[in-house]
Amino acid sequence: MSSYYDNPAFFAAYAEMNRSKYGLKAAGEWHDLKKVLPDFTNKTVLDLGCGYGWHCRYAADHGAKQVLGIDDSDKMIQQAQIMTKNENIQYKTMDIFDLDQLEQKFDIIISSLAIHYIKNYTELIQKIYQQLNNGASFVMSVEHPIFTAQGTEQWVEDEEGEISHWPVDDYFDEKVRNTDFLGFTISKYHRTLTTYVQTLLQKGLVLDHLIEPKPSQEMLEENKEMQEELRRPMMLILAAHKPNKKG
Amino acid sequence: MSSYYDNPAFFAAYAEMNRSKYGLKAAGEWHDLKKVLPDFTNKTVLDLGCGYGWHCRYAADHGAKQVLGIDDSDKMIQQAQIMTKNENIQYKTMDIFDLDQLEQKFDIIISSLAIHYIKNYTELIQKIYQQLNNGASFVMSVEHPIFTAQGTEQWVEDEEGEISHWPVDDYFDEKVRNTDFLGFTISKYHRTLTTYVQTLLQKGLVLDHLIEPKPSQEMLEENKEMQEELRRPMMLILAAHKPNKKG
Repeated sequence: MSSYYDNPAFFAAYAEMNRSKYGLKAAGEWHDLKKVLPDFTNKTVLDLGCGYGWHCRYAADHGAKQVLGIDDSDKMIQQAQIMTKNENIQYKTMDIFDLDQLEQKFDIIISSLAIHYIKNYTELIQKIYQQLNNGASFVMSVEHPIFTAQGTEQWVEDEEGEISHWPVDDYFDEKVRNTDFLGFTISKYHRTLTTYVQTLLQKGLVLDHLIEPKPSQEMLEENKEMQEELRRPMMLILAAHKPNKKG
Repeated sequence: MSSYYDNPAFFAAYAEMNRSKYGLKAAGEWHDLKKVLPDFTNKTVLDLGCGYGWHCRYAADHGAKQVLGIDDSDKMIQQAQIMTKNENIQYKTMDIFDLDQLEQKFDIIISSLAIHYIKNYTELIQKIYQQLNNGASFVMSVEHPIFTAQGTEQWVEDEEGEISHWPVDDYFDEKVRNTDFLGFTISKYHRTLTTYVQTLLQKGLVLDHLIEPKPSQEMLEENKEMQEELRRPMMLILAAHKPNKKG
């Protein structure tokens, strides 16, 4: 599987996004995601789809003893390595669906906005479950099913060009959606909320948090366009853990 | 608080709905709800917003040793009593928000399509938690946040009058919505999915199932209009339990 991010033009466009230039604090969901992250102190951490490595560095800066970031884009991994000084962090180019090839289990697995690119969610969660130590945490963010269902990822506008509402359609049709991202056509998988949550539960994880992030008060005040983000959820954060013992 | 259902004209209109005439098997969500109901054998059961008592009778018919159905509508309770022969079932006219006045705890609490009428969800869940025995189950269904967010509960149609999509707006604005139901204006409370799920978790319940019901294959084949129900979720089912012990 080749990575969109290895396309030089796409990689350059991605580099111009605020979250690429300014990191976690420029990501609208970060202030909500941060609240549900577990304590990293002395933990081993795996980041699935690490990109530039922002979350890896955050984990290491907050006490993680060992962090592995994987991403299927060579260019992303190179960029992450350039931006990282901490020796507790390693990066590896590999498809996140191949995580079962890692010979190690982890105390914490995180994945930010990567899992909607994966075709087989059920199998991925099965692999994640197996790669978690007992009592370990899993935190993931994806694009929200409301956001991905209809497929265009565009507001419906009225005759004056003002936002009217967000369209939802084909909700239960769990297939690929081809949408525009930074001027490129990107394939993502739409799944229902039922699938996202129920799969975690059926594989044996215990749900700790379900959060639809919204911009912080500070972001809303600094940027009036952020008000639009209150009209429909864009992302979904799920935090869960593997029980210490079954039963 | 007076009940819409005590208005004779509304009560009469409600009586003409398929789910009123034909019961559970005519309710589009029933085949999914049924799957997540706990074993009723020898259990005590409370039904919040019992209406005609369909779920109470189902529980008793499946082994519950005692069932209490409460509803704020006298007319509903009278109808439930008329339709019920089983002596293990009692009905009581009372606001479901007053459940903390019951002197008994229960093994199972269920609530079908009633909680979106309750203004203070957090306090309701707190009261439900207190009224559950350790290890007890709670299963609720509500209108889905995607369904309630924008407020009209109507499809957006194209120029030919065909369904175009479902509108979502004001998602994070958790307030009352006044919508038409059977020709009457009814007030319901829109809440985000975050609020629905996170409140259960924060009060100490463990989530067992999150289901967005869709029509059964049989219903889809019998009634082609049911295909529309695959275009957006209408309901949300949450099943949880109170742990036997904390920790």
